[in-house]
Amino acid sequence: MFCFRSPTEEFADGYPSDETWHGYINNNDRVLLKTIRYTSPTSAGAECIDPDCTWVEQWVHRAGPREKIYFKPEEVKAAIVTCGGLCPGLNDVIRQIVITLEIYGVKKIVGIPFGYRGFSDEDLSEMPLSRQVVQNVHLSGGSLLGVSRGGPSVSNIVDRMEEGGINMLFVLGGNGTHAGANAIHNEVCRKRRLKVAVVGVPKTIDNDILLMDKTFGFDTAVEEAQRAINSAYIEAHSAYRGVGIVKLMGRSSGFIAMHASLASGQIDICLIPEVPFNLHGPHGVLRHLKYLLETKGSAVICVAEGAGQDFLHKTNATDASGNIVLGDIGVHLQQQIKKYFKDMGSTADVKYIDPTYMIRACRANASDGILCTVLGQNAVHGAFAGYSGITVGICNTHYVYLPIPEVISYPRVVDPNSRMWHRCLTSTGQPDFI
Amino acid sequence: MFCFRSPTEEFADGYPSDETWHGYINNNDRVLLKTIRYTSPTSAGAECIDPDCTWVEQWVHRAGPREKIYFKPEEVKAAIVTCGGLCPGLNDVIRQIVITLEIYGVKKIVGIPFGYRGFSDEDLSEMPLSRQVVQNVHLSGGSLLGVSRGGPSVSNIVDRMEEGGINMLFVLGGNGTHAGANAIHNEVCRKRRLKVAVVGVPKTIDNDILLMDKTFGFDTAVEEAQRAINSAYIEAHSAYRGVGIVKLMGRSSGFIAMHASLASGQIDICLIPEVPFNLHGPHGVLRHLKYLLETKGSAVICVAEGAGQDFLHKTNATDASGNIVLGDIGVHLQQQIKKYFKDMGSTADVKYIDPTYMIRACRANASDGILCTVLGQNAVHGAFAGYSGITVGICNTHYVYLPIPEVISYPRVVDPNSRMWHRCLTSTGQPDFI
Amino acid sequence: MFCFRSPTEEFADGYPSDETWHGYINNNDRVLLKTIRYTSPTSAGAECIDPDCTWVEQWVHRAGPREKIYFKPEEVKAAIVTCGGLCPGLNDVIRQIVITLEIYGVKKIVGIPFGYRGFSDEDLSEMPLSRQVVQNVHLSGGSLLGVSRGGPSVSNIVDRMEEGGINMLFVLGGNGTHAGANAIHNEVCRKRRLKVAVVGVPKTIDNDILLMDKTFGFDTAVEEAQRAINSAYIEAHSAYRGVGIVKLMGRSSGFIAMHASLASGQIDICLIPEVPFNLHGPHGVLRHLKYLLETKGSAVICVAEGAGQDFLHKTNATDASGNIVLGDIGVHLQQQIKKYFKDMGSTADVKYIDPTYMIRACRANASDGILCTVLGQNAVHGAFAGYSGITVGICNTHYVYLPIPEVISYPRVVDPNSRMWHRCLTSTGQPDFI
Amino acid sequence: MFCFRSPTEEFADGYPSDETWHGYINNNDRVLLKTIRYTSPTSAGAECIDPDCTWVEQWVHRAGPREKIYFKPEEVKAAIVTCGGLCPGLNDVIRQIVITLEIYGVKKIVGIPFGYRGFSDEDLSEMPLSRQVVQNVHLSGGSLLGVSRGGPSVSNIVDRMEEGGINMLFVLGGNGTHAGANAIHNEVCRKRRLKVAVVGVPKTIDNDILLMDKTFGFDTAVEEAQRAINSAYIEAHSAYRGVGIVKLMGRSSGFIAMHASLASGQIDICLIPEVPFNLHGPHGVLRHLKYLLETKGSAVICVAEGAGQDFLHKTNATDASGNIVLGDIGVHLQQQIKKYFKDMGSTADVKYIDPTYMIRACRANASDGILCTVLGQNAVHGAFAGYSGITVGICNTHYVYLPIPEVISYPRVVDPNSRMWHRCLTSTGQPDFI
Repeated sequence: MFCFRSPTEEFADGYPSDETWHGYINNNDRVLLKTIRYTSPTSAGAECIDPDCTWVEQWVHRAGPREKIYFKPEEVKAAIVTCGGLCPGLNDVIRQIVITLEIYGVKKIVGIPFGYRGFSDEDLSEMPLSRQVVQNVHLSGGSLLGVSRGGPSVSNIVDRMEEGGINMLFVLGGNGTHAGANAIHNEVCRKRRLKVAVVGVPKTIDNDILLMDKTFGFDTAVEEAQRAINSAYIEAHSAYRGVGIVKLMGRSSGFIAMHASLASGQIDICLIPEVPFNLHGPHGVLRHLKYLLETKGSAVICVAEGAGQDFLHKTNATDASGNIVLGDIGVHLQQQIKKYFKDMGSTADVKYIDPTYMIRACRANASDGILCTVLGQNAVHGAFAGYSGITVGICNTHYVYLPIPEVISYPRVVDPNSRMWHRCLTSTGQPDFI
Repeated sequence: MFCFRSPTEEFADGYPSDETWHGYINNNDRVLLKTIRYTSPTSAGAECIDPDCTWVEQWVHRAGPREKIYFKPEEVKAAIVTCGGLCPGLNDVIRQIVITLEIYGVKKIVGIPFGYRGFSDEDLSEMPLSRQVVQNVHLSGGSLLGVSRGGPSVSNIVDRMEEGGINMLFVLGGNGTHAGANAIHNEVCRKRRLKVAVVGVPKTIDNDILLMDKTFGFDTAVEEAQRAINSAYIEAHSAYRGVGIVKLMGRSSGFIAMHASLASGQIDICLIPEVPFNLHGPHGVLRHLKYLLETKGSAVICVAEGAGQDFLHKTNATDASGNIVLGDIGVHLQQQIKKYFKDMGSTADVKYIDPTYMIRACRANASDGILCTVLGQNAVHGAFAGYSGITVGICNTHYVYLPIPEVISYPRVVDPNSRMWHRCLTSTGQPDFI
Repeated sequence: MFCFRSPTEEFADGYPSDETWHGYINNNDRVLLKTIRYTSPTSAGAECIDPDCTWVEQWVHRAGPREKIYFKPEEVKAAIVTCGGLCPGLNDVIRQIVITLEIYGVKKIVGIPFGYRGFSDEDLSEMPLSRQVVQNVHLSGGSLLGVSRGGPSVSNIVDRMEEGGINMLFVLGGNGTHAGANAIHNEVCRKRRLKVAVVGVPKTIDNDILLMDKTFGFDTAVEEAQRAINSAYIEAHSAYRGVGIVKLMGRSSGFIAMHASLASGQIDICLIPEVPFNLHGPHGVLRHLKYLLETKGSAVICVAEGAGQDFLHKTNATDASGNIVLGDIGVHLQQQIKKYFKDMGSTADVKYIDPTYMIRACRANASDGILCTVLGQNAVHGAFAGYSGITVGICNTHYVYLPIPEVISYPRVVDPNSRMWHRCLTSTGQPDFI
Repeated sequence: MFCFRSPTEEFADGYPSDETWHGYINNNDRVLLKTIRYTSPTSAGAECIDPDCTWVEQWVHRAGPREKIYFKPEEVKAAIVTCGGLCPGLNDVIRQIVITLEIYGVKKIVGIPFGYRGFSDEDLSEMPLSRQVVQNVHLSGGSLLGVSRGGPSVSNIVDRMEEGGINMLFVLGGNGTHAGANAIHNEVCRKRRLKVAVVGVPKTIDNDILLMDKTFGFDTAVEEAQRAINSAYIEAHSAYRGVGIVKLMGRSSGFIAMHASLASGQIDICLIPEVPFNLHGPHGVLRHLKYLLETKGSAVICVAEGAGQDFLHKTNATDASGNIVLGDIGVHLQQQIKKYFKDMGSTADVKYIDPTYMIRACRANASDGILCTVLGQNAVHGAFAGYSGITVGICNTHYVYLPIPEVISYPRVVDPNSRMWHRCLTSTGQPDFI
């Protein structure tokens, strides 16, 4: 019977890999997850130290080509689907999956248009993919295949896969999409017991996936955010009592806001969902802003979209991905700041910039280009190696395969006790706003 | 008695210009304003043709250094002030005015902080300027001096100029600011009969100044708008029934929207204040959008901020410059489009981008860098030549001096009968929306 | 019998233009070439003044769509060819010619691969073109069709055109290519008396075409040159007695070097072919460099590739376009500077940058994007209007048709007595090097 | 007596750190160097496996602020010196060292101009540094302090440090510079027994420092190299039988060439110093090029400057840093390719791009901006913690202190058996050239 999660000895007799990949990865190669040894409970970032919870060696599967492969390339029909919102690098990953499949010798490669929806909509049909189609697609942002949120039920998707003869599925998306990919994997592998590989590539511009050094698109997002921050700085600096506000992506985690603030060196106040703050009161953001205008003449705020949601009117509205529709903290800040200074008979010239779509739609920068290339290659290596229900990632600079459930249990967040957040505070010079 | 507008023979006995400018402009050199001969009333762009109104030769003063100058450099104290909103190139003009003044031998150069306000506020003081201060200032956007709207009365300003010994004033700003500069000129020259030169440099990112080929910052704005347009195109193209909206600057004129649409080749609908349009009805924008989504699958709209203001709730609010606060046509379009498709049981995925501050805060591109350099040089040449109440500009690729009142009577607008608008329509393929 | 150069009354009875272009140009509309009135022989830039040679009104044909057209669109087979070296905007012009032809209703559009060579090489075949093929081609630099120098004889080309049924030929290239286009025009029109239109679009990154405000790609070249100049400035500035040299395009004219120097504000010495200079001697470049290193600590030189050719070993080698292969003035300068300082027991840290290919291969910036769009549209309008042996251009901000011979008699050069060169000298502060 | 290398228990009684850094690092915290477990000698990248050489746990000191510090801030005079060639991020590191020193309370901070030379030259004097001076310095490339190679003897440097009262020295430079820093450390600590801290920050755009994930500037270099590669691709692609060559930095290691090739997806042949290759012969580069021109029509080569040095005339010349002056492999390749095709009666249009200075002079991108910020902060934390003779780096995404001798014993090189090189080969599709 054929069903798998991670291939070990039992698959030692696959087909030999015809193609030379210039070297192979042994199935038992492993990468270590945690690499830091804290020696005091007060060490910055220390989760816990002896004797309560000792340093745990956690080893994960190393990604890469295997000497034995578990699909005959000529029997493979591979499909790629991109879900959720845009993220720089989608086209790079698509491109590399296609190119790597072709090197393995796969002839039948298709794109599913507009996310999981493409499995159900009558008016949407598979897009044939080949090296020629994808050759220069990484030079543009967006997704060649189109994206969308939501989609049909898992059994509908698997029915369509069976009808279409798809036995390799590459899924690019965030936590929700990966939950779907895992459900598809369980349906095809455990329930229907089909010889099908489902491999995810984590796509979250917010960088909020557990265990990974970073996700693709994040680096580009931080890079592109610099334009918006510098514009806000220039506007604030050139105005009389100017305040610039930049809202960046980050529903539940402030990685983009934190890294973009650190990189710019031009942010005075960085607000993220993980660190509560008051607007009003003697230790509030507004009071500090007053201090900044009096001493520096201007100020620039970088706020993650998910920060300060408790100040906003709650809605229960959700989008097609099931995400709660957030209130706009940027607009709220702008209004509160104007009101605060007006009420005290003063003034502030507040400019608010929301560069979200201009960041999301960028093409990947070089660093993300490499990350996407390697993730795409390894997604294909993983499928051919016989893995399913996995996703690919980078841990401690090495590429690995991780079981989907381990990375989607909850979103990764900024640790307020981490050195990186401390560095950000050192850089902005902001106090605690509590 | 000394008072002037444009120097002609009566000033033939100024001081010799010590500095070599590698050549001089004769005071009587002139540049022709209109250079096209229409031969039919139906010729595109024809304003009128014979015999009703014959082709009028209109000649204006050529800008540049003069052999005789009307200020002793060592007696000059020059001030520079920047008013209104940000515009790419402000720092380039400031820089070049300072450098050119220094080449003339002027030692006393100051910046007035934060617009005309800097003439009255107690807590603001003149900023000393020199080549060293401005050397690399053109590498950043914004204004070294700061900008603001509004300010004290003309007589207050002139009082402060007299107290401070300022006898050359360079004013960078739009129509309102130029009206102020002209009032200052009238006060100092005609009423108080002081030997003071007031010279304007038109600063309007909207390019809405009469008689000029273009104003500085416009080219950069069109360039930078491409990022936003391309992002909207990528977002629309990658989404299921995606619509991208980009709102660009242009309160009363659509030059930026028109040029940015033409340059991009990615816009399906361009909406400007000069050309009325309906949203609803058989020839409305929404109906055309429906057609585009059905045939192309996505659409991109470029709208000038001043377009469609009759659809929005009127407010009588004005900003400190006296400009009416516009309603947000971008948000209105987004809402109307969503509602339209929802009402017909369909859907559209609408993304709205407002890149205004990210465009305004840019540094000048090379083309604007040259324009600013030459405008700045010529502003100083004009003041030394004895001109006052003038502004500098470029007409038919040549640099000229124009009396302020001639350029500020009303904002320049896009002629719906011009070839440039026709080219834009050809490029977008849009119908008349009436 | 059908043969033409510019259509006037004799062609008043063409076919009606089915397509609405939102307005037409009357055949007799004209644009004025010279728009400046010099009033003294010493006025900067004055060529001559009364009474010797009075101001001559020179009027040229206005470009644009005509109400009557001289080809039935369904009978047209149009070909496009790109010759010479790369220039930003080639793809924009190709794209717009194709789109405009399609709007006229033309179905048969082909690209000739790799310049005139594509007319003769057996292994090269016509590339079918359509809106779909060219839709996003302007987002990349280079030429979709490929370029090359040289090619077969005129009669061979015309033979191939006759065999292929091509009756509209659009030629993108420089002076040599235009000479070829004119010869083709003479062959088809005057000798073979075929109903064929040959229309040029001047392609010279050097901006050295007579009568035109500027040629496409020039603006982008000046923009991109800023990167190289800024790099040279940074390298020179950060080094001990650093000298940066940037060599820019300009075989016989220094427009790029002059404009790039002006735009940057970072150049100390600008050397162009039109203005002779000495390296050695009391007024030479090297002596001034010594002065700059002593006073400023560093210096940046911008040199046009055609400058100082008399210092270099003469070769009689020519490339396939017949251009003499230039010696490398950049390398020569670098060597001479090193030697000069070494010989006097001193030192200079010289860095030489040649960004030529990185500039040529850029995509067009927004300003050139518009220029290319309008040139491409007007090239097609001209062909349909019955013009042949013409080229399109922009004069005094208006678009015009010019007979090819009038623009290719010799390359346009920088006038050392022009204001623009004077402004450059003011900006660099450099003396005469003679 | 005071002399140190790494502070442990013996320094447990320093001064308390007044400044809050929002958390401290325990002196005994450690970071693991190697995190991959190979399970077969044939695993890609495996250095060795059991039982010959077992997986060695190597732990290094974790970087960050300490609760006890070993200098009273008011007694510190800190100096910063930048040596060697330019590298993106120099100004970011300088800026952050100054800012962090000020947060500690240090008042006396100076820059040593133009590398070690600034310690000896009479005409060069210390540059006072403060937050105000460095605030926006990271927005430009280059080094605020200037760089140079070579310099005075170690004892001369230390004499000058003693005279000047410098007790903290931050050295930014490559292997040679670090060797110098270590010699200074040995002189001050071991020989003269002064209470002085010498801390290095590795500056090598080539990324060739042992043990570190990457060095600052490398990411920016790979990013900027994309422009050159894309230009070469466009030039090659648009030419008839076009070949583009891009030479990138990398004297002894090919990291930039390898990463830039991977990121671009446009390179057909990547040549690096670590992997020998033949030009001629049946498996040579030229033969493969012939194949590429025949099948694809064009080709793009990326070559590291140190590759193929055995083909070039040996010189024994060295620069002031003692580096051997390399022959120009780019020019050699260009000549050989032209000759090869000419000799066989064919042709190739070869364009060669050397973007070195345009890459080096860039400002740091966002990713390097963060790296520089954290390295700069940690350099200061290290000095205050009592470390000397160390350098700061990033290992497995964590920041660490390493003894200088351990990282400079030899340059880090690309392992031809590593997965990253294999991925590069997969991406280019190139064969072995032996």
